[in-house]
Amino acid sequence: MTHMTPQEFRHLGRQAVDWIADYWETLDSLPVAPQIAPGRIRGRLPDHPPTEGQPFEALLGDLSDVIVPGLLHWQHPRFLGYFPANASGPAVLAELLSAGLGVQGMSWVTSPACTELEQHTLDWLVELLGLPDHFRSTGPGGGVIQDTASSALLVALVAALHRAGKGSVRREGVGGTQYALYISPETHSAATKAAIVAGLGEQAVRHVATRPGTQELDVAELRALITRDLDAGITPLMAVATVGTTSTGAVDPVADIGRICREHGLWLHVDAAYAGVAAVCPELRWLNDGVAQYADSYCTNPHKWLLTNFDCDTFWVADRSWLTGALTLLPEYLRNAPSESGEVTDYRNWQIPLGRRFRALKLWAVIRWYGAEGLRAHIRQGIALADRLAGWIGADERFELRAPHPLSLVCFRLRTPPDADRNEANLRLLKAVNATGSTFLTHSTIGDDVVLRMAAGGVLTEERHLREAWQCILQETEAMQGAQADARPRLP
Amino acid sequence: MTHMTPQEFRHLGRQAVDWIADYWETLDSLPVAPQIAPGRIRGRLPDHPPTEGQPFEALLGDLSDVIVPGLLHWQHPRFLGYFPANASGPAVLAELLSAGLGVQGMSWVTSPACTELEQHTLDWLVELLGLPDHFRSTGPGGGVIQDTASSALLVALVAALHRAGKGSVRREGVGGTQYALYISPETHSAATKAAIVAGLGEQAVRHVATRPGTQELDVAELRALITRDLDAGITPLMAVATVGTTSTGAVDPVADIGRICREHGLWLHVDAAYAGVAAVCPELRWLNDGVAQYADSYCTNPHKWLLTNFDCDTFWVADRSWLTGALTLLPEYLRNAPSESGEVTDYRNWQIPLGRRFRALKLWAVIRWYGAEGLRAHIRQGIALADRLAGWIGADERFELRAPHPLSLVCFRLRTPPDADRNEANLRLLKAVNATGSTFLTHSTIGDDVVLRMAAGGVLTEERHLREAWQCILQETEAMQGAQADARPRLP
Ligand SMILES: Cc1ncc(COP(=O)(O)O)c(C=O)c1O
Ligand SMILES: Cc1ncc(COP(=O)(O)O)c(C=O)c1O
Repeated sequence: MTHMTPQEFRHLGRQAVDWIADYWETLDSLPVAPQIAPGRIRGRLPDHPPTEGQPFEALLGDLSDVIVPGLLHWQHPRFLGYFPANASGPAVLAELLSAGLGVQGMSWVTSPACTELEQHTLDWLVELLGLPDHFRSTGPGGGVIQDTASSALLVALVAALHRAGKGSVRREGVGGTQYALYISPETHSAATKAAIVAGLGEQAVRHVATRPGTQELDVAELRALITRDLDAGITPLMAVATVGTTSTGAVDPVADIGRICREHGLWLHVDAAYAGVAAVCPELRWLNDGVAQYADSYCTNPHKWLLTNFDCDTFWVADRSWLTGALTLLPEYLRNAPSESGEVTDYRNWQIPLGRRFRALKLWAVIRWYGAEGLRAHIRQGIALADRLAGWIGADERFELRAPHPLSLVCFRLRTPPDADRNEANLRLLKAVNATGSTFLTHSTIGDDVVLRMAAGGVLTEERHLREAWQCILQETEAMQGAQADARPRLP
Repeated sequence: MTHMTPQEFRHLGRQAVDWIADYWETLDSLPVAPQIAPGRIRGRLPDHPPTEGQPFEALLGDLSDVIVPGLLHWQHPRFLGYFPANASGPAVLAELLSAGLGVQGMSWVTSPACTELEQHTLDWLVELLGLPDHFRSTGPGGGVIQDTASSALLVALVAALHRAGKGSVRREGVGGTQYALYISPETHSAATKAAIVAGLGEQAVRHVATRPGTQELDVAELRALITRDLDAGITPLMAVATVGTTSTGAVDPVADIGRICREHGLWLHVDAAYAGVAAVCPELRWLNDGVAQYADSYCTNPHKWLLTNFDCDTFWVADRSWLTGALTLLPEYLRNAPSESGEVTDYRNWQIPLGRRFRALKLWAVIRWYGAEGLRAHIRQGIALADRLAGWIGADERFELRAPHPLSLVCFRLRTPPDADRNEANLRLLKAVNATGSTFLTHSTIGDDVVLRMAAGGVLTEERHLREAWQCILQETEAMQGAQADARPRLP
């Protein structure tokens, strides 16, 4: 074997750094989405692993020639699908440093600074987002980095079960008790996944209707469903309130939901995966209304819109004892004096995995590089761009805005003649637009209506990119409508 | 806000690369473990996040001055605790590239090359480790990268439940059915954690005794416990066989366990987190005996001993339909034509999290940089070093080897006079050795005996480092025994 020497690392590291800078600099000229059939990338890779080692330059070459043409470019300035997955310079370099340090923070003792920096940056984030003081690690609660909002939701559910069963669920399982989990049709599918994984099954999931004309959970419906469950001998366990739903960015009435949870002893989890980070801006603190009073757990994803490359979900609990009570295990090979002293935090007991990498480093790097003001400017820029976009859409009578756009996401829809299948037309437009490679959008539904989603907030996205994307949509619309006109039978 | 420009990234990227190379070059001169009180690192960090951005150089400075002194250095050549968490040059640079690309592989369509490279490298690994063909993505099974062996175990359990309940568990939860999960006292605590999270509770966990004089699961006991459960109307669900236990590296009799599982319809999960990767060496293929015939799922951690920085657990299933059947959800906002064609793999349905980063890149980089022969040489080096170490220990009558050491882990113990508390003496020795900063070991128990664990296999660990570590142990032993002698009452 030949390990890479430090000299080689310096040399090849420069190449890798330059490769990334080149990639970022040329992204604009690449198609956003690949036009590629399943299996095509694999078809270009050797069937067997090499017997002898190969130079790193060969990998970089194949990365450019084979892999890049098969990527959907999430960092592309005209990538507007899903939500952004911001990879900023400071975050990427801190990820590199974390990989180079190669420490493992499962317990405090396995790298004290890894745990303490995580506590510290999460306390900083409590301050930056205006979250309640009891979320701080110095109080009864505390924050932890999870990989994703999905994992956060699952451990919140496990903690909720621990509390509901007064500790018995950990020993005896969910058993014969029937629990119910309340979400809305707009709640992310991660909630249903968590219910499946936690052994409750899909039958435990109640889809509380949204308030007519909105995508926000209807509190009266929630109350009615809880009452129905209580009458049926079912234990209401947890409600999920979403701050910034995946489809449209709607914000559930957290305080109203929270009051009902409090009344009936439900755990309130607030899923602010996408929108929560926007609260770095004082004018958007309203996003957190109700969280301080009612949330038992809360998460938001710096790996979406806060400049911290995937994965980094920040998750807080109001009372950490339910979480650690459910998940703490101390086999002999992990025993150590600091853990037994009770003076330290062992983050392995806050999550599903045992091992954990040093993710706080990138969050620290992002907060320090940008400062609070820089983070705010980034969020405001995404919102301003979305607003610009919504202005163009609203001014064009061929389209309709289909939901409010308080943040960086705009949902709209092509209008069609009354006799046309409007959903089909919108999906056709989406497909045509994405096939150009000029921009990339996704879709969702509002009620029965297909809507197109455009999410600003990418690191490289400027107004001109949105303008180009919009031009592309207009062109494809005209091409589609022209083709339809052509297809109409003409009189001779 | 000021994003880092590509020029700045090139410039600061060089600094970060050099920082890591410098770190690796000077590691040898740092204490392996910090001597630090809880809260000391946090005490050196500013209470509040900065309002204005700060230069990256400030972060690098604090990394050196504040963070590094608070780390346990897992890449230190004299780090011999737990298991190694190999960070190799090619893996670290590929992690950097992955962060820079910033793509998200939740579905095939969200970056086809991300999914296809993962399938491809996992198929390569099937070949390299001599795993069965039905684990290949081209057959009924398939491989996927999980963050950790703990998560792999949990999704294996969820898949097992899906199979046992013929699909009903996903809908109805684990409900009234009582399931049992069979492990040994040497099985990693991740199994119990999975049982808790999946809603089965600790009561579902059966600790099958080990065969007397060994740390291997006793198959007769397993059979007896299954029979007892069946008689009691409990459903035997899953057994975990460990290839390379955490405490001592023992290998459970996979084939014998597998036969019983087959007979009674249990899911067999093989946890080869630490040792599985050693099967890159043909002479160690026996580690996988029984896997081809009986394993429903199998995992091993390239992030331990196969040169791929954390996190990277490779997980395979013999029949992927149980896993994806349990976990697949397709909300409207994730719908797309390739998924609906059934021709592609959407890895989000193979795991708990939704989002996923491009982890295959680092595995690809490692396999290509080292080649099969390089990987083998690395494993053989770890084994040879452990053997050397065991030789020194065995030749010193103050110590006893306390378990076989077929791989890179050596378990031993200080002998003491019959009247002394041997466990206490060993823990005292451990503490003294770790306090020197010269090396770092951990402990475990075999039966009631405390043993010290030394795990070779680090990237930077050479024979001279083990020799230094052994010298340190001898010195501390002599100091301890000298102190004891001094403490004996002397006749005037
Ligand atoms: C509201 C919401 N919750 C959860 C998720 C799941 O994200 P993750 O990949 O972090 O699990 C998303 C992703 O878009 C989301 O928008
Ligand atoms: C046999 C075994 N299984 C599981 C694990 C848990 O590892 P992870 O951090 O990948 O969950 C370990 C860790 O040492 C292990 O040795």
